[in-house]
Amino acid sequence: MKLAMRKLLILGGDGYIGWPASMFFSSTWDVTIIDSLIKREWESMTNGRPLIPVPNIHERVHIWEKVSGRHIDVRIGDIKDAALVYGLLGQLRPDAVIHFAEQPSAPYSMASRDHAVETQMNNVIGTLNLIFAIRDIGIDTHLIKIGTMGEYGTPNIDIEEGFLEIAYKGRKDVLPFPKQPGSFYHLSKVFDSQNLLFAAPIWGLRVTDLNQGVVYGIETKDTECAEGLHTSFHYDSVFGTVINRFCVQAVLGFPLTIYGSGSQKRSFINLSDSLQCIHLSLEAPPKRGEYRVFNQFTEVFSIFEVAEIIEQAGAEFDLQVEIAPLENPRAEKSDHHYNPSNKNLLNLGLCQKNLSDVILREIFRRILKYKDMVNRESLLPRIKWRR
Amino acid sequence: MKLAMRKLLILGGDGYIGWPASMFFSSTWDVTIIDSLIKREWESMTNGRPLIPVPNIHERVHIWEKVSGRHIDVRIGDIKDAALVYGLLGQLRPDAVIHFAEQPSAPYSMASRDHAVETQMNNVIGTLNLIFAIRDIGIDTHLIKIGTMGEYGTPNIDIEEGFLEIAYKGRKDVLPFPKQPGSFYHLSKVFDSQNLLFAAPIWGLRVTDLNQGVVYGIETKDTECAEGLHTSFHYDSVFGTVINRFCVQAVLGFPLTIYGSGSQKRSFINLSDSLQCIHLSLEAPPKRGEYRVFNQFTEVFSIFEVAEIIEQAGAEFDLQVEIAPLENPRAEKSDHHYNPSNKNLLNLGLCQKNLSDVILREIFRRILKYKDMVNRESLLPRIKWRR
Repeated sequence: MKLAMRKLLILGGDGYIGWPASMFFSSTWDVTIIDSLIKREWESMTNGRPLIPVPNIHERVHIWEKVSGRHIDVRIGDIKDAALVYGLLGQLRPDAVIHFAEQPSAPYSMASRDHAVETQMNNVIGTLNLIFAIRDIGIDTHLIKIGTMGEYGTPNIDIEEGFLEIAYKGRKDVLPFPKQPGSFYHLSKVFDSQNLLFAAPIWGLRVTDLNQGVVYGIETKDTECAEGLHTSFHYDSVFGTVINRFCVQAVLGFPLTIYGSGSQKRSFINLSDSLQCIHLSLEAPPKRGEYRVFNQFTEVFSIFEVAEIIEQAGAEFDLQVEIAPLENPRAEKSDHHYNPSNKNLLNLGLCQKNLSDVILREIFRRILKYKDMVNRESLLPRIKWRR
Repeated sequence: MKLAMRKLLILGGDGYIGWPASMFFSSTWDVTIIDSLIKREWESMTNGRPLIPVPNIHERVHIWEKVSGRHIDVRIGDIKDAALVYGLLGQLRPDAVIHFAEQPSAPYSMASRDHAVETQMNNVIGTLNLIFAIRDIGIDTHLIKIGTMGEYGTPNIDIEEGFLEIAYKGRKDVLPFPKQPGSFYHLSKVFDSQNLLFAAPIWGLRVTDLNQGVVYGIETKDTECAEGLHTSFHYDSVFGTVINRFCVQAVLGFPLTIYGSGSQKRSFINLSDSLQCIHLSLEAPPKRGEYRVFNQFTEVFSIFEVAEIIEQAGAEFDLQVEIAPLENPRAEKSDHHYNPSNKNLLNLGLCQKNLSDVILREIFRRILKYKDMVNRESLLPRIKWRR
């Protein structure tokens, strides 16, 4: 029966989204994970660590197999190693690849020359190796690439999905959406997108580029199945996303660290919805030669609005939530237009969960349990965009 | 007196434009060259070599010093080496840097995975090292970066210089021009541009990005001064640009290798005009924090028009010029709108030389002298964009 299943390769399957995705898809796909485990090193180097200690990837799949009866294959390796990528793709011939194996932090990429170069090389070479391997081996594989809504920046026009119809001096064209990425990390994601946009039509590749909003959340239905299946929940200023970090600060009675005025707006998505979106993309693959972009988010908030929602939800837990604006360590617009589209995934059937008391309660409860393990030093931003 | 001169660092000073630029600017600037000499290796690997054998860089500056009395400092090294870049910039504290030190060939970048990765890493890391060194050392240096008109591709709207005012759904913004680069090389140039656009305002850098047309020509006033001062004239299908290659084919009585219909249009500039444009940019530097783009070309032709001009000029030399369309090895539009602007350099005073019989005669005469040294094998394209 296993033999009849479609094959899915998950790059970066040990990560915050990669691990829940690996469990989630293992019910309908024959899943292989590859991960270099370097994220765990990056965490140590930046004094960040997940809230709840995470078993190693071999232990994780072992626990999952005991609980669910589903086997996940694990390979350890770095996709910057072309021989490894060619070997693995040639042997597996996967029907689809989900590519999470990138350095995912904007502050990390801004820490120094070394971090900027490492981020751009890691992310760009990994993706190049992947598309060349698919081409050279000659397999018909759907590549799902995780990008970010941050690729667009905050233009003063509506944000469409990957492309924009432009009328200029009496002429028209549909062109790549003009992007304004705000860190060397976000730039690396734009570079990936541009390499994919170029290669897909000339080599006949099937590519879905998911421009994902800021992900938040701690549980999926699978992570709750047994002790040790939780994902790596980050709350530090380098690898933690804003809602997750605010929740930890709220539980600890620390002021929420709003960068600047807090009026900057971002798009957001819950961890479970992220899996749902990837599922929708996998089940409706693009044509050969098609590079398509889905904006993968469910809601838009300003950072200040997020803080207020957390403040309200915290009241139930008797949390006194304070808000403490900090000088913004990033270079970003404060007051701006922000109206991104997510039509493509809605049209595919995305049924979105909103940031609500229910979700926040679940996050608070988890954090409360591990409250004493929080590394307080890691909450404040130390990496600045400007000199 | 030398001590009072402004300091200019030329990266890639051993190259086709880099060497004439080094001589040209040595009359008014204190010039230091750095070059890794890897271009000469790339030439061997692709069976390309300059028409006229080129003395090594130490011999070149020695001949130049004897003829002109002007000294040029030479360093050998790769700007991917951060320590070298930091050391050199810290020691020299140059007023300006001209950055030619990139892998410059689209076909080279398309030859294999290895070539694509090498091109993007070489080009992106070099530029990152440079801007981080300028920032970290804290020098006020004008960076002149050589980009290409090929970054824009061939959109169905007019091509402006770096940016575009877009009106969309009742709102407006000036955004980075949406680019459609046509090879991994052209993509690397776009990545550089995006890194510079991001870093300049937040770090207070002065950056001029010169999006250069296809360069042609063999002589400048300096290369003619003495034997051994000529530049490395490439005519092969990998490193040779189209006009230079056509001239060699015309002289040899070989058909001109037009790719596809020849109706694709490109922008062009003569080698001497390229130096003039860089000079104009150097003498009117941008403000601190300003990233500006100049489209550096003088004329627009279709490839077929170029072939016809060469055919006509060849008649004077009794050259029977034939035109032989080949299946296009590249992926590019055949019939398309093409109306790029070069207002910025015209406003600075660019006084352009047109592709004329005079220039072509000079090129033909040089080629005739070295006719027997042409490597005929290298004229036909072997690298294909599509599988």
